[in-house]
Amino acid sequence: MEQKNIMEYDTVSLKDQEDGVAIIDQTKLPGEIQVILLKTADEIWDAIYQLKVRGAPAIGVAAAFGIYVLAKQIHTKEYPVFLEEFQKHKRYLDSARPTAVNLSWALGRMEEVVKRQKDRPVEEIKELLKEEAVCIQEEDIQVCKSIGEFGLTLLKPGDGILTHCNAGKLAAVRYGTATAPIYLGQERGYGFRVFADETRPLLQGARLTAFELASSGVDVTLICDNMSGAVMKNGWVNAVFVGCDRVAANGDTANKIGTSVVAAVAKQYGVPFYVAAPTATIDLNTLTGEDIVIEQRDPKEVTAMWYQAPMAPEGVKVFNPAFDVTSHTLIDGIVTEYGIARPPYETSLREIFDRKKKK
Amino acid sequence: MEQKNIMEYDTVSLKDQEDGVAIIDQTKLPGEIQVILLKTADEIWDAIYQLKVRGAPAIGVAAAFGIYVLAKQIHTKEYPVFLEEFQKHKRYLDSARPTAVNLSWALGRMEEVVKRQKDRPVEEIKELLKEEAVCIQEEDIQVCKSIGEFGLTLLKPGDGILTHCNAGKLAAVRYGTATAPIYLGQERGYGFRVFADETRPLLQGARLTAFELASSGVDVTLICDNMSGAVMKNGWVNAVFVGCDRVAANGDTANKIGTSVVAAVAKQYGVPFYVAAPTATIDLNTLTGEDIVIEQRDPKEVTAMWYQAPMAPEGVKVFNPAFDVTSHTLIDGIVTEYGIARPPYETSLREIFDRKKKK
Repeated sequence: MEQKNIMEYDTVSLKDQEDGVAIIDQTKLPGEIQVILLKTADEIWDAIYQLKVRGAPAIGVAAAFGIYVLAKQIHTKEYPVFLEEFQKHKRYLDSARPTAVNLSWALGRMEEVVKRQKDRPVEEIKELLKEEAVCIQEEDIQVCKSIGEFGLTLLKPGDGILTHCNAGKLAAVRYGTATAPIYLGQERGYGFRVFADETRPLLQGARLTAFELASSGVDVTLICDNMSGAVMKNGWVNAVFVGCDRVAANGDTANKIGTSVVAAVAKQYGVPFYVAAPTATIDLNTLTGEDIVIEQRDPKEVTAMWYQAPMAPEGVKVFNPAFDVTSHTLIDGIVTEYGIARPPYETSLREIFDRKKKK
Repeated sequence: MEQKNIMEYDTVSLKDQEDGVAIIDQTKLPGEIQVILLKTADEIWDAIYQLKVRGAPAIGVAAAFGIYVLAKQIHTKEYPVFLEEFQKHKRYLDSARPTAVNLSWALGRMEEVVKRQKDRPVEEIKELLKEEAVCIQEEDIQVCKSIGEFGLTLLKPGDGILTHCNAGKLAAVRYGTATAPIYLGQERGYGFRVFADETRPLLQGARLTAFELASSGVDVTLICDNMSGAVMKNGWVNAVFVGCDRVAANGDTANKIGTSVVAAVAKQYGVPFYVAAPTATIDLNTLTGEDIVIEQRDPKEVTAMWYQAPMAPEGVKVFNPAFDVTSHTLIDGIVTEYGIARPPYETSLREIFDRKKKK
C-alpha cells in the first residue's frame, strides 16, 4: 500500500498570520490530503456541519480557534459591543452540531475569558482568547496521551481491538482518544490487531480510521458494521474501544450511530467494552442518555451520496440518526485523562472530577 | 415515489421454448428491472456467483431450472453418458456458492430423478426433470405462503418489524420467506411498519427489500445496519424476521452477514427474533453452526464497488464474510411451512420433519 503520511499533518491548527483556522478537509480523505483555511463564521460553521472537521475533541479545538479568529475581526474598542458580537458568533457556531458537548464546552471556555477580563482593553482580551484557544489545543494532546496510558493498562501485547467510527488523531489533535492506547502500544511494540468498523453512512471508519492506522503501520482490518458479530465470535477481539460525543452522569454515552450495536454484540460475546472520554466530554448536568439530543441527518447520506448507481428506491423513507446512546449497563469502563471510571458511574465519574479539581 | 411494480415480474422462471432460465438481474435493482436469459452452464454459474439471482429459495429454483436446461443440451441416448454429463453440470453449479443449502438440495432432488428413472429413455428423463423443476418452483410458492400464515400468528396489527438483507419475493418465487407474513398482513390490512437494514456490503436490504416492499405499498423505512440499536431502543420494533441460508440441527442459523448482530441487539432490547426457514433450508446433517462453511468474498465489495471516490485506503486489509452464524440461543422461533419450531431445537426441528413426512 502506498502510504500518504497523515501523521505529518495537523488535524486543526491556528494560522494567526493568515487570520484563519487550517483543517484537513476530512470529507476528501482518503483520496487526497487537502488542507483548507477557514476565515469566516460561515466557513467555520459549514466545516463543522459538513464534517470537514469532526470528532468531539477536534470540533472543540476548531471552535476555539474559530471564535478567536472571528473575535479578531470585531473592530471596536467598546467592551459591550465586543461582547455582543462575540456572543452572536458563539451562538451561531454552537448551532452547527447539537450532540457533541465539546463544541459548547470550548465556546463556553472562550466566553468565560471574555467575561472574566471585561475590565481590560478589547485588544488584550483578543490576545487572551488566543492563549486560551492554544491552551485548549495543548490540553487535548496531553489529555489524549493520558487516556492512552490508562487505556493501555486494559490491554496486553497481541490483543485484538475493535473500534467504531473515528476517535483517532483525525478526531483530535494528536493520538486521538479511542486510538490513543493503540498508538502508544504501537510505539512500544504491543503488536495489536485492530478491526475498524466502516461506520455507515459516512464511512469514517473506512475513510479515516483504517487510513490513519494503516498510515502509522498499525495492523488494521476493515470490516462492515454488521461483521462485528462474526469477528467477535471468531475470538479475534479482546476489547472494544470507542470514543464519545457526550457522557451523561450515569455513564450513558452518546457516540456515533452504531456504537450501541457494537456494545450489545460485545456483551453477547463477553468482550469488554470501553469508552475513551476526555472529561470535557463528560456532562454531569446531563443526568441520563434520555436527556441527550440526537442529531438527525439527511436521508441522502444513506441512499445516494457515495454511489454511482441508485442504491435505494427513489423517495424511500429513511431514518438517519447521527448518534445513538449506549446504556451504561453495557459499558465496562470509561477511560478519562484522570483514570478509569468503573460502574456505578454516578459515583465513579464524580470521583474523576474530584481528582481533576485537585490537580 | 414513482413505483415500478416489481411484483409483476417473476424472480426466476423457465423459458422452455427458448432453452433458458429467465431471471431478474438483481445487481441492476433498483435502478432498472432487467430480465436476462441464462442458457449455458457458465451463465447460470455466474448468475448465482455474482448474485444476479440470490436468496436461498430462488437459488434452488434457478439451479433446478438451470440443470434441466443443461440436461436438455446433452445429446445422447445412452444413460451412462447422460448421467456422467448431468453430474458434471451438477458439481459445477453446486460450486457457485457454498453456504446456501438449497443449491445442493435442489440439485440433489434433480439428480435423484435421473437415478430413479435410469431405466427410461433419456428423452423421458429430460421431461421428468422438467416436471421436477416446475414442482420445486410451485412448492416454493406454497411453502412461502404457509410460512407467512404461521409467521402472522406471531404478529398483531400495527406491529413494527425489522428485517435484514432480502428474504423477500426477490429471494424466492413469490411472497418470500421473512417477508411472507408482511405481505399476507398487508393483504389483510395489518398496517405493519417495516424497518429494512440496508445490509452491507451488497445492500440487498436497500436495493431489494426496501424496493419490493415499497413497490407493494408496505410502510418501509430504510436504515443502515448499525441503526438497529437506535430503532429498537425507541421501541419501534415488535419482532425481527430474517431468512436463512442453512439451519443446523441445533437451530444455529447461517444467514446474511450481520444477522447475528441483529439477534444480539434484539436480545438486548427484549425483541423476539424469528427465522423464516423452508424445511429445504434446514439441514439435520449439519449438527451445529460450527460445521457450516462460510463463504468469504472479494474485499472490493467493501472498499470500492459502489463508490464514486476512494472510500477506504488503497490495499487495506478487509474481512468480508458473506454470512454469519446466529446462535440458537438468540432465536425465539424458527418458522417453517409445517409450523413454528421453538427451543430446544434438537427436538422441535425433528418434530417438524416428522410432520412433513406424514403429509
